This record gives sequence, structure tokens and C-alpha cells, in this order.
Amino acid sequence: MQTELSQQLGIEHAVFGFTPFPAVAAAISRAGGLGVLGAVRYSTPDDLARDLDWMQAHTDGTPYGLDVVMPAKKVEGVTEADVEAMIPAGHRRFVAETLARYGVPELPDGEASGWRITGWMEEVARSQLDVAFDYPVKLLASALGPPPADVVRRAHDHGMLVAALAGSARHAAHHVAAGIDVVVAQGYEAGGHTGEIATMVLTPELVRAVAPLPVLAAGGIGSGEQIAAGLALGAQGVWLGSIWLTTEEAELNSPALTAKLLAAGSGDTVRSRALTGKPARQLRTAWTDAWDDPAGPGTLPMPLQGLLVAEAVSRVQRYEAEPLLGTPVGQIVGRMTSRRSVQAVFDDLTTGFERALDRLERIAGRAATGTDT
Amino acid sequence: MQTELSQQLGIEHAVFGFTPFPAVAAAISRAGGLGVLGAVRYSTPDDLARDLDWMQAHTDGTPYGLDVVMPAKKVEGVTEADVEAMIPAGHRRFVAETLARYGVPELPDGEASGWRITGWMEEVARSQLDVAFDYPVKLLASALGPPPADVVRRAHDHGMLVAALAGSARHAAHHVAAGIDVVVAQGYEAGGHTGEIATMVLTPELVRAVAPLPVLAAGGIGSGEQIAAGLALGAQGVWLGSIWLTTEEAELNSPALTAKLLAAGSGDTVRSRALTGKPARQLRTAWTDAWDDPAGPGTLPMPLQGLLVAEAVSRVQRYEAEPLLGTPVGQIVGRMTSRRSVQAVFDDLTTGFERALDRLERIAGRAATGTDT
Repeated sequence: MQTELSQQLGIEHAVFGFTPFPAVAAAISRAGGLGVLGAVRYSTPDDLARDLDWMQAHTDGTPYGLDVVMPAKKVEGVTEADVEAMIPAGHRRFVAETLARYGVPELPDGEASGWRITGWMEEVARSQLDVAFDYPVKLLASALGPPPADVVRRAHDHGMLVAALAGSARHAAHHVAAGIDVVVAQGYEAGGHTGEIATMVLTPELVRAVAPLPVLAAGGIGSGEQIAAGLALGAQGVWLGSIWLTTEEAELNSPALTAKLLAAGSGDTVRSRALTGKPARQLRTAWTDAWDDPAGPGTLPMPLQGLLVAEAVSRVQRYEAEPLLGTPVGQIVGRMTSRRSVQAVFDDLTTGFERALDRLERIAGRAATGTDT
Repeated sequence: MQTELSQQLGIEHAVFGFTPFPAVAAAISRAGGLGVLGAVRYSTPDDLARDLDWMQAHTDGTPYGLDVVMPAKKVEGVTEADVEAMIPAGHRRFVAETLARYGVPELPDGEASGWRITGWMEEVARSQLDVAFDYPVKLLASALGPPPADVVRRAHDHGMLVAALAGSARHAAHHVAAGIDVVVAQGYEAGGHTGEIATMVLTPELVRAVAPLPVLAAGGIGSGEQIAAGLALGAQGVWLGSIWLTTEEAELNSPALTAKLLAAGSGDTVRSRALTGKPARQLRTAWTDAWDDPAGPGTLPMPLQGLLVAEAVSRVQRYEAEPLLGTPVGQIVGRMTSRRSVQAVFDDLTTGFERALDRLERIAGRAATGTDT
């Protein structure tokens, strides 16, 4: 599965796999795709450096990427404490009451909240970038907003391509103006932050809007037939995130969450502001219901909501409070029904792509075997 | 573009075109697809018979279909007047106030409301079916809910295939239980009544769920590359509705509405209950905003909302009250940028499909010309 972009990056298949887990990212790269490690969960540069060292040792020299959240809007001199102070008391009360209603215990003394929103803040993102530029990262991706011009310059100086996620042609135009190299068309059905335009419509729209820059199709892609569809829409590759969450290499560290993911259907996600303050697709839970309930206080804007709920999310995860337990994931969660290795998933993707193409050729009368069912 | 289903129906291309306009439906059939005439706008059986006579005379013997709305839930002995009486006075006031705010005049004395909801009622649907069974209709489609068992039997006795639209696997299972032959996977991005699961995810899910019955992909399809994507997802054909609205043969009878459609982008639609009481994708207008505003009275359930707004919609259309003027249409409205003949649109679809397949073959290394941009 080769496009101009996959050749430029030196990968065998134009399949880009986003994941917060180094073991998954490395396995994707070893399988012939481009593993892209999400950096948002790292609270210190040393943590990130440790995992990039691990990636170096486990990717057998194959290329890999890094995804850093770089909000372009810079607010000078504002600290995390300043932002914390902007959170209304009523919202803090609502968090406490919701956790109490489901009997979620406090974190043990001395145990810090593991789920961090700090990766969203520019200062943290920049310290992560300082680390990243010490490694031979091939693709630097920005999940929210266009990266600042100086970051794009530094990435190019280090021989990295820069990608950015876009949910509309307007977003994509901002990215192009910022000098990025690859646009990821993040469709409505995708997990995480997403807009309202579906992949089927968004992908060809962005392909036209940013040509000759390459576009990756993201959202609704978790099988070889969906890869064929994404590439048919003009993409130079596909960007998959959700599908890796239930692989054997994923370190969700929560049997209850894994079970929920394996059981969920395509209709069991919701596009909610409950986690970060911006609409992000995730499992629908009692937690998202509480925040989306018109009778509740509603969510706060980013980054307030993320700071507000960080400790609560950690508590829900630590104690596996089932009704509240969720994660960002796309509508393809309905296809995630068994735990398999990254390699097994990847093999399914490539053979499924070939099979879908066989079928299209039969439909077009380009194969000897006639029509298709 | 041949599948088992297209061969069964005797059409050249597995492209199904839904439209309320006989001239469009006939042109789609003549071009090699299957034109499917929407019957909901016919208030008398004679009107439908007149247009089916016209179809017979203008399809050159090619097959065509008919789409009838057949709500399965039958409420015995309830008349339109009974239903009208269930509409709260406050909602009627809200309609009057909204029209007054935008200066929409009353209909002239003696001019009846042209936009009718009566086609949604079972009695009307059945009288339409009595007419339909006198014509060599090849495909009978149901846009809402599974058709009653006796209707499916009569259709089969007349040699018709029966199709039904589904937005989820649960819907599709009901259709299969009702004995239908073809499931139309109506994705989130589609115009008209639609669910929340995008075409990219819904199509392969339904293909698996209803096998060996054939599935058509609907929603987000208005170009040859999108057709290739829909077929890659396992569909045996594609179902297109929106794309025909701005063809030369379409009788929207509203230059202002045509101009709005040609100017709209993919982000200018909304999934709203404003028109019928069930979520239907349509142009976002001051009308949908008024109904979706939490400060307003909100919409009524089907069929109340449709009865409530029928005259208002007629007035908005008759006087082309620009801010309120809308129509059901999918997210591909962003690609509808010029008025062209049905044949020109159809030629673009088939050549675009071949081009998309050429590109996929290059990506897969099946063509001599190497990789693709």
C-alpha cells in the first residue's frame, strides 16, 4: 500500500497508527506502518525521553512519529494555578457529587492524579518538543490547532514532516498557512476531538482544498475495506487510533475498560465536551450523560474542563467505577470484539484492503471472475 | 459498475438515485442507474398515477423504482383531524410568531398548502401502493420503518424487490424480519431522516448483519470517488439523493433555494427535528435554529410536527423567505456548485469511479504506472 507520502516516509504501508502506548506504536512501525506515539499523557520531559529511548530500541530502525498537543493561542504568564482559580465552585461541587453518587473513593494519600491535562498547555508541549528534537522522529503531529511557526521550522530543520488534524476546510487552511506538510482529515465518526463532517465528505473536500499537500483519512477506519474506502476518497494514507486500544500490547491497565470496549457497539459513543471542554468522541457513560444533561451545570471551556475533571477521571480509572468508566474512541468500537496482537490487526488491515480491491475490480469488470455479491 | 443486485434489476450501473422529481428519476434510469421516485409529496393517488404514466413514457423501457413512506405503527381510526387536535396552542403561536418575525405573508385566498405531510399517513401510503402495483416498478423502497408484511408479499407477487432504509443494525434486523430484499445503509451524513452512525462505519456493519441480503451505501455519496468508497465498504450499490437537487431537470421551483444549495458548504446542514419531528438532515436555516433553540418550545413528535409546520413550510417556499428557506439535503451539498443535467452528473459519477479505482490499483501496486499522489 504505497503512496507518494508513504515513500517519502520510508514505510511499507500508508497506514498511520496513533496510540498513547509505546509498545503499540513500536509494533505498528515494525509491521510496516507508521506508529505515532501520543505525548499528551507525559507530565515530565524525562518520562517522554524514557519512552522515546524505548521506541528507539524496539522499532528495528523503522520510522515512527510523535503527536504533541500544541494549542496555538498563547496566553502569556498564565500558570496552571491561575487557570484552576477560574473554575466555579458549583462545578467542583458537581464533580464531587457525581463521584459520590457512584461511590468512587478518594485517591490514597500521596498518590497523585495520573490523568493529566498539563500536556495540553503550551509550556509543557514545548518542553516535550525539546526532547522530541533529540530523536529521529519522522512525523510530528499536532492534534489540536496548527503548530506555531517556529515549531514547524525546527521540525523541518530536523528533517521531520509536520501533520495536523483538521475537521473542516477552514481548519485545514489555518494548518496550511502555518506551513505544515500533511493534513489529517478527522471525520465526525473518529474518536477524540472531532467536528461534525463525516470522513466520507471531509476527506475529498480537504484533498481538494489543500492540494498538492497530502491528506490522511481519519475516522471510521478500522478494517481493510475502510482503508480502501479512505484511499478511494483521495487520501494518501489512513490514520487509525481506536483500533489499537484493545490490542494485546495496549496498556489500558483496566480489565473493566477493556471489557467495555470489546462489548460496545457503534452506537455506544457520544461526541461530548465532558473530558476536555471541546467536543470529543468517547464511550457514552454515566459521566458523559451527567455533563450532557441540560439539568446539570454543563461543561466549561478548554482548558478549564480538563483541569476540573483530571483528578475525577483518575479516580474513576483507578477504582474502575464501571458506570463512569470511559475513554476516547471512535464509532469503529463496534468492530473491536477480541484482543489480538498489533501484528494480527495489521495483517487483517492489509489483507482486507487487497480483498476489497479485488471486489472493486470485479464490480468494474476488470477481473476475470465476473460480478460480485 | 455491476453487482449481483444491479444484474438482478437489469441496470447498467449499481447507482440508485432517489428524487421527488419524475424528470430526474427518468433521466437517472435512462443514464443506466435506477431512478427511484419519492411518493411522499403526492396527496392523491391520481397525481401519482399521472406521474407514473409519465415515467413509463420517458424511461425508454429501463427499470425504475418508487419510494413510499410506510410507518408500520398503525393507529386504528385516527384521522388527520384527531392528530391536528393534539397540537398545543403554544406551538401554533410559535409558528405564527416565527413567520411574522421574518415577514412571511399568508397564502392567497383559495390556495392550499402545497407541502403535505399526509403522505406519511398509512391510509395515504396504501392508496399510493394500490396505484404503484399497476406499474412495472422494479424496486419499492420504504424510507421510514419496515413495510407491513402484506405490502412485502404484494410487492413480491408483482415481481418487485423491496428496500428499506436503516440507520442502525437494530433497524436493519426489523427490516429483515419484515421480509425485505435490500437494506439501504443511511449514514449520519445523509440528507433526510438519518441516525448518528456515519456511512463509513454503518455500511460494513450492515453488510455483515444482513448477509446474504444486499446493502446499498447512502449518505455522503455524490462523486465517483465516494461511490468507490461505498462499494469498497461491501455495498452492492450506492443510493444518492442530494446530488440531483441542483440538476437542470429538478423542479425545485425556487431560484432562491437553488442558489442557497449551490452556495452551501458541507458544514451548512444540521440534523434537526424541525421538519417532521424525527431527526432529518437539512440546510441549517433560521427555521431550524428557531426549533433547535433551547429557549423555544422545541419540536413535537412525528406526525405532529409535520402537521404543525406544513402550511408554514408552504408559505416559506411560496414567498422564498430567504432566511427560513431550506430543504432536506446531505453534507455533500458542499460539492453541489453548478447546475448540470442529470446525464452530466451521472457521467461524472461513472468516470470518477473508474479514476478512483485506477488510483487504488496504483497504490496497491497492481498498475504499471507506479505510486500515486
